[in-house]
Amino acid sequence: MGAEGDEEYSCSHGYKVGFPPEKGLLAEISDGVKETFFADEPLREYKGQPRSKKLWLGLQHVFPVLDWGRHYTLGKLKGDLVAGITIASLCIPQDIAYAKMAHLPPHIGLYSSFVPPLIYALMGTSRDLAVGPAAVVSLLIGTLLQSEIDPVKNPLEYSRLAFTATFFAGITQALLGFFRLGFIVEFISHAALVGFMSGAAITIALQQLKGFLGIVHFTSSSDIISVMKSIWENVHHGWNWQTILIGASFLAFLLATKYIAKKNKKLFWVSSIAPLISVIVSTFFVYITRADKHGVVIIKDIKQGINPPSFHLIYFSGPYLMKGFRIGVITGMVALTDAIAFGRVFASMKDYQIDGNKEMVALGTMNIVGSMTSCYVATGSLSRSAVNYMAGCKTTVSNVVMALVVVLTLVLITPLFKYTPIAILSSIIISVVVSLIDYESVQLIWKVDKMDFVACLGAFLGVIFASVEYGLLAAVAISFAKILLHVTRPRTALLGNLPRTFIYMNAEQYPEAIKVPGVLIVRVDSAIYFTNSNYVKERILRWLRDEDEQQKEQGLPETELLIVELSAVTDIDTSGIHALEELLKALEKRQIQLILANPGPTVIRKLRSAKFMELIGDDKIVMSAGDAVKKFALKPAENV
Amino acid sequence: MGAEGDEEYSCSHGYKVGFPPEKGLLAEISDGVKETFFADEPLREYKGQPRSKKLWLGLQHVFPVLDWGRHYTLGKLKGDLVAGITIASLCIPQDIAYAKMAHLPPHIGLYSSFVPPLIYALMGTSRDLAVGPAAVVSLLIGTLLQSEIDPVKNPLEYSRLAFTATFFAGITQALLGFFRLGFIVEFISHAALVGFMSGAAITIALQQLKGFLGIVHFTSSSDIISVMKSIWENVHHGWNWQTILIGASFLAFLLATKYIAKKNKKLFWVSSIAPLISVIVSTFFVYITRADKHGVVIIKDIKQGINPPSFHLIYFSGPYLMKGFRIGVITGMVALTDAIAFGRVFASMKDYQIDGNKEMVALGTMNIVGSMTSCYVATGSLSRSAVNYMAGCKTTVSNVVMALVVVLTLVLITPLFKYTPIAILSSIIISVVVSLIDYESVQLIWKVDKMDFVACLGAFLGVIFASVEYGLLAAVAISFAKILLHVTRPRTALLGNLPRTFIYMNAEQYPEAIKVPGVLIVRVDSAIYFTNSNYVKERILRWLRDEDEQQKEQGLPETELLIVELSAVTDIDTSGIHALEELLKALEKRQIQLILANPGPTVIRKLRSAKFMELIGDDKIVMSAGDAVKKFALKPAENV
Repeated sequence: MGAEGDEEYSCSHGYKVGFPPEKGLLAEISDGVKETFFADEPLREYKGQPRSKKLWLGLQHVFPVLDWGRHYTLGKLKGDLVAGITIASLCIPQDIAYAKMAHLPPHIGLYSSFVPPLIYALMGTSRDLAVGPAAVVSLLIGTLLQSEIDPVKNPLEYSRLAFTATFFAGITQALLGFFRLGFIVEFISHAALVGFMSGAAITIALQQLKGFLGIVHFTSSSDIISVMKSIWENVHHGWNWQTILIGASFLAFLLATKYIAKKNKKLFWVSSIAPLISVIVSTFFVYITRADKHGVVIIKDIKQGINPPSFHLIYFSGPYLMKGFRIGVITGMVALTDAIAFGRVFASMKDYQIDGNKEMVALGTMNIVGSMTSCYVATGSLSRSAVNYMAGCKTTVSNVVMALVVVLTLVLITPLFKYTPIAILSSIIISVVVSLIDYESVQLIWKVDKMDFVACLGAFLGVIFASVEYGLLAAVAISFAKILLHVTRPRTALLGNLPRTFIYMNAEQYPEAIKVPGVLIVRVDSAIYFTNSNYVKERILRWLRDEDEQQKEQGLPETELLIVELSAVTDIDTSGIHALEELLKALEKRQIQLILANPGPTVIRKLRSAKFMELIGDDKIVMSAGDAVKKFALKPAENV
Repeated sequence: MGAEGDEEYSCSHGYKVGFPPEKGLLAEISDGVKETFFADEPLREYKGQPRSKKLWLGLQHVFPVLDWGRHYTLGKLKGDLVAGITIASLCIPQDIAYAKMAHLPPHIGLYSSFVPPLIYALMGTSRDLAVGPAAVVSLLIGTLLQSEIDPVKNPLEYSRLAFTATFFAGITQALLGFFRLGFIVEFISHAALVGFMSGAAITIALQQLKGFLGIVHFTSSSDIISVMKSIWENVHHGWNWQTILIGASFLAFLLATKYIAKKNKKLFWVSSIAPLISVIVSTFFVYITRADKHGVVIIKDIKQGINPPSFHLIYFSGPYLMKGFRIGVITGMVALTDAIAFGRVFASMKDYQIDGNKEMVALGTMNIVGSMTSCYVATGSLSRSAVNYMAGCKTTVSNVVMALVVVLTLVLITPLFKYTPIAILSSIIISVVVSLIDYESVQLIWKVDKMDFVACLGAFLGVIFASVEYGLLAAVAISFAKILLHVTRPRTALLGNLPRTFIYMNAEQYPEAIKVPGVLIVRVDSAIYFTNSNYVKERILRWLRDEDEQQKEQGLPETELLIVELSAVTDIDTSGIHALEELLKALEKRQIQLILANPGPTVIRKLRSAKFMELIGDDKIVMSAGDAVKKFALKPAENV
């Protein structure tokens, strides 16, 4: 049985399974750390530069404005100016409405559109993200804060806790970025996020029915059942027809402008100034008719002037420290997930890269500074970022323009908002959040992956039937369960030979593929780890049993050769090697040969160091299934 | 550009990428459920059987004794009798010692070797497992119970809570088995378990220094620092030389017999009866010399008679219900993990199968019944099972024999244990647990997988420096982190062509493999999910960037074709498809063609339903990297 002779049979033309060089512990760990935390090679451009240049690059790393600012032109400024003014007109009514949703005074919302955008402009890497208060985050922080302190009875403590939570949200975000743990936000799957956002949109819309219907006594729960009950109980004495009239007519107006903007992309500005127009018109109308005397609730108290400092208001001790910390961590993570997801969407539309870890540091810093200047958690807003993008923004300067317009508003015209009816704010929120319900994505998810759809539905139902927190928990839990399931029950497939070739393919996918008599070829489609090593072993034996039964029925010869295709087995651990040993033993008892085909570099190295190679025999590990069949199956004379 | 002409170039002989048939939601879910929970096809043998046969098979399923009992022979009984008596001689001193470790009266330990083994004999599927109290579980339950109730001040409440915990441990185990969630125990990796067990062994041995050195005031913490401090503080007035003399001499004897048994496998019985001999000799010695009057602590109170009922002692209400529940769940899971791991070891040595889910139901039932008959948590014991195996046990009947011997002991000779010194129990425990320190496994783990070694070390340090609970937590957390890391940062590899073939292999593993000019072939080695979709996209672009730099240096042509090998990509979700879309867009900007090679059945189906096929073009999805090179790279005339 000359080795030369064997090689002629082989379709690999005599190539042998390769052994990669051994790696030491340190090399292995440093490789792992590098791929995990520094996959984007942040230090790449520093290589071989003089010290002064390195310092400059470092500064640019923290403040990207130093990089793009040097190439800033008048043409870009024009685009940013138009976009900035447009998003300012959208953000002013939204800020007031979102602050209301977080149970905070309206001016806090406006404050949050002044300081954070300025910081983001210096540090952010997305050119299109418009930062400030956002719908889902406002709902979330409002729900969480409310369960600790009553915002009506203790407004000061409430806003102090809000600043504390904002501070820790910022710290969380900045630390995650600094320690390059950005990949943590990717643990919430896209599908779960879509479900969560849709659920949150419906929850927000339902909550707005309070302002929209002019109900005075409303539930503080956010689940659909409590809200519906609350509305029903108020049906006879709590609804106010003047409020409903104002709310409904302006909601119709807002939705109509949205529809127009959708039909004709050039008219997007119609829908972006519509909220401001609604606010102005409705405020004027209420002022003239004095509708506030007929039960139409108005904003009433709104402070003039820019952000006062609030560092002294943050709880750094006492029982509220831990509560603020907890709320901050949750809110900060959700705000991060949103901002980075939105940032990626727009970056891919204009084909540039955003740096997840840098983004996190930027968002974190802006919230830390925000918490010291009377702002609550700000993040990227989907509606305003979309308008920013469509209005032709070029850089983060549009955020600066927006912040300046907001400051002017704060200094000059806030008193005019006194007569703005709450109902108009509700209408604005409802018209914004309907676009968070992304049924196109849901449809796609349903078509592509049914398990993903279950995750989406779970997060959605969690939000609308329980609470935002539970919805979030459901989203994370389902996402994790999916990962674990995938790792616990990897796929296996039977391979067959494509006639006239040396190629062996999945027999389920390629009906042309035919079985080689007496040979069973099983492909394992995942790393073999402790979580699945037993399953993989049992599954292979089950394939063998099923095959043998079928062959017995058809009167074919029994299986003599079992080839396990390891191409997709990227890694194996001690449990996995143990499972292979057990498989080998079980097959030896039945006088079936075990061949391993095409192990990858990591697997072959580990098989060797665990001395499995000696157990199975060097020649039983081959480069491909084709080789194995040639070498072991097609010589029946030797194989009796 | 005739299709016929193309096919001649192709090394796949004209085969096209196959499309598997579409599956509905229900089929997909039911397949998933089947593979997850019923991978072992428990209903297989019921198929096509008459009803009476089905009933009989069902009974056999719950009570395997009905199956193997029919083939039970006198020869087997002989083996079981010898093995049963041998393990009984080992279990009697161990039971007393372990009960002491769990801060329970010694007779509770003996009770736990009577009822549970009988139940297990009827329901268990392992032929070699010897059940009863075990070292690690006793330590764990002792630590957990002690933090709730002081066993010295409130012995009744303490034992009531122990029965409650045992009850819920049984319920947990039985339910996990019933709902076929057996795979949950596989989430603790082998490496973490090795570390945990070694750490627990050292912790147990250290705790035994109390009895061994005759210290009266000893710490109740189990971490190494507290224990060492406690020993040091007692050095001048707390140590008792008589106790140390007894303990040390018998420990030397026990370790010597262990060494003999290890050297000569036939003499294993020497080490298995050594503990009983030590107990008898030392008891006799203390009785004669009345050493108990000189500070040698003895067992003193031990009850005669068999298990009294204890159902009425279990807390079914009040604050201890939840505490018992929590302790029960933790202890039950650990006991399960141990028993199933040990069961598998012996099953693979004798080449039979144990059924994880059936085992869990058996272990659960035995603990539920045990909790009602004054037993505490019993599980498979490694030391006794090993002796059982070596003594030639054939079936679970050896457990029955052991139980009967224990009953005789309880009824007839327990009063004789009155003068047994505690030091001898400590010596026995120390001599048993040293074999839990599995440094051969640790060595293997170090050689095979450095990350696994870190997990092992983490669990080990957690146990010895913090507590058993924290060690367990560390083991689980590290195991999970490893899974998540694997899913977040999958491997990618560059492929090269093996000269004179159509085969493309990992260039790192096969140095012979050469690059095709202008073509970059990247293999992705994992399902592309939301956790890694961004990373995979970025990593592929990084390969491209690195390659282009290298080519520029060498003056070679730029990359025109990027082939992504998808053989190992077993699944893709919406985020993954989105990442591919972004990759396609980024490559289009640089005028690089993207080709996908060898997508599996699931991937191709999802790519089609997400309309990605239309975006990239049907002909850009090919069966192998070889095909792609043939078709797109080797026709430079058309590719200008």
